Amino acid sequence: MQMHPNKDTQLCMSLSARPGNFGLRFHNHLYEQLGLNFYYKAFSSQDLPGAISGIRALGIRGCGVSMPFKEAAIALVDELDDSVQAIDSLNTIVNTNGHLKAYNTDYIAVEQLLKKHAVPQDSTFALRGSGGMAKAVASALRDGGYANGVIVARNERAGRALAHHLGYAWQADMADLRPDMLINVTPIGMTGGAEADALAFDADIVETARTVFDVVAIPAETPLIVHARSQGKQVITGLEVIAIQALEQFVLYTGVRPTQEQFEKAVAFARL
Amino acid sequence: MQMHPNKDTQLCMSLSARPGNFGLRFHNHLYEQLGLNFYYKAFSSQDLPGAISGIRALGIRGCGVSMPFKEAAIALVDELDDSVQAIDSLNTIVNTNGHLKAYNTDYIAVEQLLKKHAVPQDSTFALRGSGGMAKAVASALRDGGYANGVIVARNERAGRALAHHLGYAWQADMADLRPDMLINVTPIGMTGGAEADALAFDADIVETARTVFDVVAIPAETPLIVHARSQGKQVITGLEVIAIQALEQFVLYTGVRPTQEQFEKAVAFARL
Repeated sequence: MQMHPNKDTQLCMSLSARPGNFGLRFHNHLYEQLGLNFYYKAFSSQDLPGAISGIRALGIRGCGVSMPFKEAAIALVDELDDSVQAIDSLNTIVNTNGHLKAYNTDYIAVEQLLKKHAVPQDSTFALRGSGGMAKAVASALRDGGYANGVIVARNERAGRALAHHLGYAWQADMADLRPDMLINVTPIGMTGGAEADALAFDADIVETARTVFDVVAIPAETPLIVHARSQGKQVITGLEVIAIQALEQFVLYTGVRPTQEQFEKAVAFARL
Repeated sequence: MQMHPNKDTQLCMSLSARPGNFGLRFHNHLYEQLGLNFYYKAFSSQDLPGAISGIRALGIRGCGVSMPFKEAAIALVDELDDSVQAIDSLNTIVNTNGHLKAYNTDYIAVEQLLKKHAVPQDSTFALRGSGGMAKAVASALRDGGYANGVIVARNERAGRALAHHLGYAWQADMADLRPDMLINVTPIGMTGGAEADALAFDADIVETARTVFDVVAIPAETPLIVHARSQGKQVITGLEVIAIQALEQFVLYTGVRPTQEQFEKAVAFARL
């Protein structure tokens, strides 16, 4: 059901330093499939307060927030959902008549994925990373009952703070850690990054693990995921994270939950 | 040439208290016809400074400005085109890498229409109205060499100020004025207005005129225009004004000038 835009069309948007195509393709595809009078636009900005003023003044319905704005935006909204409060990092703003409520659908997506893949709660894990996304993933692990974890981060201050906040240990590197679940929340393996071809965890560490979870979404098949698959490990990919977090944003913005089939088609379309 | 939106899609917008459909249909139709990666969205707002902050922060390429923001917006831009400077009223903002330049394409459209219809420069005229649009129309008349005019406005202060500014006379009502050209720049005859069914000039005044110019665009066939046509008068309609002013906005935003045929098709599409 293709609709022509009209004066009642509602705008949703994303805000990031370097916009991608996934979110806007995902949302616009579903608007069209479901006949919703919405349009999704990706914006880049270097002026977060100005952008938030614009969202309020123009009545923009929803905003996906990416690096580097996920933490600074918290001071600029009116209300924090539970998914934000524990993490101090948002990725979604919903504007209801000028009242801005923040959510973290990355947190929600990771929580869902651990259940969907039935990762045992007594799994030990090592999580590499200490940024905003690492906070979301580690918080979902903690709240999902995964008690035996180590935050591995070269940035000692950020790594220790995150570990302490959630009751985990911290290490600067993997050393002799050999956990059940390996979780990469660094840019290692990301297209265009400095370490695009590198494994986020060494092969001998993957060998003793049961589950490999890589948050990198572009490509979804990172060197780490490719290697883990070849070793018969359970894998959870960044594509699953960005797809589910986008779905939850869609539901928050429109009030409509697509069917599983509609969701999967939108993901397939958005990846192209 | 239908394009899918992507991360490089540029946004243009309108800002008004009560958005209509004409502008967004006109611009979006031409984007599609010409294969330009743009999208046009109509916004309403009650917070002009916040909206302008948003335009800057989000890199929105262009903004059409309607009532009640045409004068207040002047203080919020960086540069005024000649079309704005004389009038103190803008209707268009072009954003080039954060530098906002204001134009008045209503002024430009009226200037073009007087030439296109070959209205003799020595025509006497009466112009009803004293608001932002009246300023644009009267300035275009003055700059087009139409020296013998009277501003007719019940609002004495605004009417006198406009007349004085441009070197015209002012009257509170038509009294015994019987000019060659009658110009309505009030809401009389506008759909949904308090005087939708009224003639902006009495029939006996129309009888002695040569040209009737009604700036009301919805409907284009106002009671005044319908009556003037029936009397065989030369008419210039508000549809011509909004179409040409939208075309000039389109050229400013995209750098592309559609053909006459493309323009006419876009107007026909936008009116539906």
